[in-house]
Amino acid sequence: MNSLFVFNIGALVTNDPGRGGLLGVVQEGAVAIIDGVIDWVGPEADTPADYGDLLRLDAGGAAVLPGFVDPHTHLVFAGDRSDEFARRLRGESYEEILAAGGGILSTVEATRSASEDELYEAATERVWRMLANGTTTVEVKSGYGLDVATEEKMLRVVARLEESLPIDVVPTFLGAHVLPAEYREDRNAYVELVCGEMLDACGPLARFCDVFSDEAAFTVDETRRILEAAKERGLDARVHADQLGRVGAAHLAADLSAASADHLDHATDEDLLTMRAAGTVAVLLPAVSFSMRLPYPDGRRVWDSGVTVALATDCNPGTAYVESMPFVVALAALNMGLTPDEAVWAATRGSARSLKLDDRGHLVRDAVADLVILDAPTHLHIPYRPDADLVAAVVKSGVVL
Amino acid sequence: MNSLFVFNIGALVTNDPGRGGLLGVVQEGAVAIIDGVIDWVGPEADTPADYGDLLRLDAGGAAVLPGFVDPHTHLVFAGDRSDEFARRLRGESYEEILAAGGGILSTVEATRSASEDELYEAATERVWRMLANGTTTVEVKSGYGLDVATEEKMLRVVARLEESLPIDVVPTFLGAHVLPAEYREDRNAYVELVCGEMLDACGPLARFCDVFSDEAAFTVDETRRILEAAKERGLDARVHADQLGRVGAAHLAADLSAASADHLDHATDEDLLTMRAAGTVAVLLPAVSFSMRLPYPDGRRVWDSGVTVALATDCNPGTAYVESMPFVVALAALNMGLTPDEAVWAATRGSARSLKLDDRGHLVRDAVADLVILDAPTHLHIPYRPDADLVAAVVKSGVVL
Repeated sequence: MNSLFVFNIGALVTNDPGRGGLLGVVQEGAVAIIDGVIDWVGPEADTPADYGDLLRLDAGGAAVLPGFVDPHTHLVFAGDRSDEFARRLRGESYEEILAAGGGILSTVEATRSASEDELYEAATERVWRMLANGTTTVEVKSGYGLDVATEEKMLRVVARLEESLPIDVVPTFLGAHVLPAEYREDRNAYVELVCGEMLDACGPLARFCDVFSDEAAFTVDETRRILEAAKERGLDARVHADQLGRVGAAHLAADLSAASADHLDHATDEDLLTMRAAGTVAVLLPAVSFSMRLPYPDGRRVWDSGVTVALATDCNPGTAYVESMPFVVALAALNMGLTPDEAVWAATRGSARSLKLDDRGHLVRDAVADLVILDAPTHLHIPYRPDADLVAAVVKSGVVL
Repeated sequence: MNSLFVFNIGALVTNDPGRGGLLGVVQEGAVAIIDGVIDWVGPEADTPADYGDLLRLDAGGAAVLPGFVDPHTHLVFAGDRSDEFARRLRGESYEEILAAGGGILSTVEATRSASEDELYEAATERVWRMLANGTTTVEVKSGYGLDVATEEKMLRVVARLEESLPIDVVPTFLGAHVLPAEYREDRNAYVELVCGEMLDACGPLARFCDVFSDEAAFTVDETRRILEAAKERGLDARVHADQLGRVGAAHLAADLSAASADHLDHATDEDLLTMRAAGTVAVLLPAVSFSMRLPYPDGRRVWDSGVTVALATDCNPGTAYVESMPFVVALAALNMGLTPDEAVWAATRGSARSLKLDDRGHLVRDAVADLVILDAPTHLHIPYRPDADLVAAVVKSGVVL
């Protein structure tokens, strides 16, 4: 049963520009869903007569939003880095932690050692928590394998998540996440491995290719080589760009017409304008700043540049073990200078655009019927009650979860 | 059934100084509870033979903590200030909002208009969410009435919460929260009302008396008058102290041997030493800084002064609509310079001390058997996963909720 009539909605966020305001809010709204797709949206008083036979869901006057789209996660991983996290809170540097065997390479080691089933089970728990927080589409990256077999294993896990759970999963190949220890003396050989054998194996399992382009990871030239090799195999580009310093990665992302450039802590105004012209979406990740106690990128400046803005959790075991998009919306509104309206739009419509999915992130005729019903009268409660579980119910493709 | 044997605990936080370290962690621990009180705590391998007949709860290797104690809340209120919150995020000043009829006085108006049942029902929902987040003792203040009838009504609601819900509720009279509009021209008359008729009516319903001592609220002299009048009626003192500026309220709290001085954003080192000597506990409220986007008080400095530190949500509709003590622990560790261990201690043992409750906040023989079972192997996951619902189960006075 994936046809449904949702009524008695207090404030209905449609993101439909035809309805006025950024969020196109309909008061006392209703949504009619046929076969998992939105058939009609509007004020309940205007409902056409055709929907009398549908299953009916009473929203009880609550706010309804498009399902959240989380366009940047690393949720397939093994291991536990809470102890490393606590050490950093006590003042240890990341370099000291790396030297003691911590950091991302400890996650690589644990992920290589874990079986596909173990990875799948741990990731499944994370996806269910995301669903409970209203995420209905999630991007998931590889990148803790850094060898052909483990990168492929991670992407098989991503495919199993997509097949088995009521969420749409977008797979991204991130073989160029960080240089693995065994290639420390020969980085060119690793880039060639990624561009050749690894992409041959992983490309068919992925929709996007991402590269961590940074002084501590891959140069802009290496990034270009990898993303061009991926493009030949039909993968669109995403880039971890200018997070730790300005290396020109956001500019490269625009140059390659990448779907997104993510992080952007050090992107310049000119970089943002170049991205805007190329249609490259800016994916902001406030949970990293929160968890790492770093300055937040200026979301206000990014938004005002005219580039399309998206929000994501960056869910990962090192720098942001965060799963809730409402929490990310709260952080963006409280700490990045976005208004609550802009943050909600970025976490739904902006995020969908960053994944090149035009059929979601808004509630309009023919869109995928992904809805979040809040336990609150308006979306303003998301930053107002930052620790609350405000998601009362989730509708995925017309099915109430 | 309030006798119970909890076993297969991974890391058991006892806060027992006899067990070493700040948190007195027992690995592979167990807890035996008889008639709602702790009878025995220790490594499971050392369990005495006497507990074979008890109901048994398998913690599945998870961490177990003392129940959280939340020693500063304003959770009885009516009205919704999410719109005001969003306006502040867009840059409006509190003064502009006050002038437009917002701010605390709008909560006073809504609370005066609400029936006792309406207040009770809204507060009950908040308390259940607190319980779900592991709070087993909560202090609740009046202070949105500012007239005798409404202050009394609020404290009757607090008494009903205590009677009807599986949580211990500590009532605090806060008639001197802010000057009501109708006394703007005659503040002395309001102070006399508080010290006389209001305390006569409310004193018997309260354990503590609190005053918001600040330039925007009550002077240090007024605070002293009110707290001394309360003391004559058997109420111990708490003080909202030096939040917006240094007015000498923390010093006064120490001078009056107050149970706590709360906020303390502007307290000096000397104030803290005076509090330490007097045994006045410092209650820190990081959710206010988070929600109001203000600098955090330096928890490190407060802790290092030697004063006893507690943590609280300050749950209220204006400056911190936060209910989760784990979220407060995460904020304190991430933003106030406390270690995760110190933050957990402050949210349990420190908070219990601030309420003069020596029988809780630690897991030792004869303590109230309030336990939190985490969905995590150690308490370090609380700051590591700041948005996660990490409370798997709560035991209140030996009963599994």
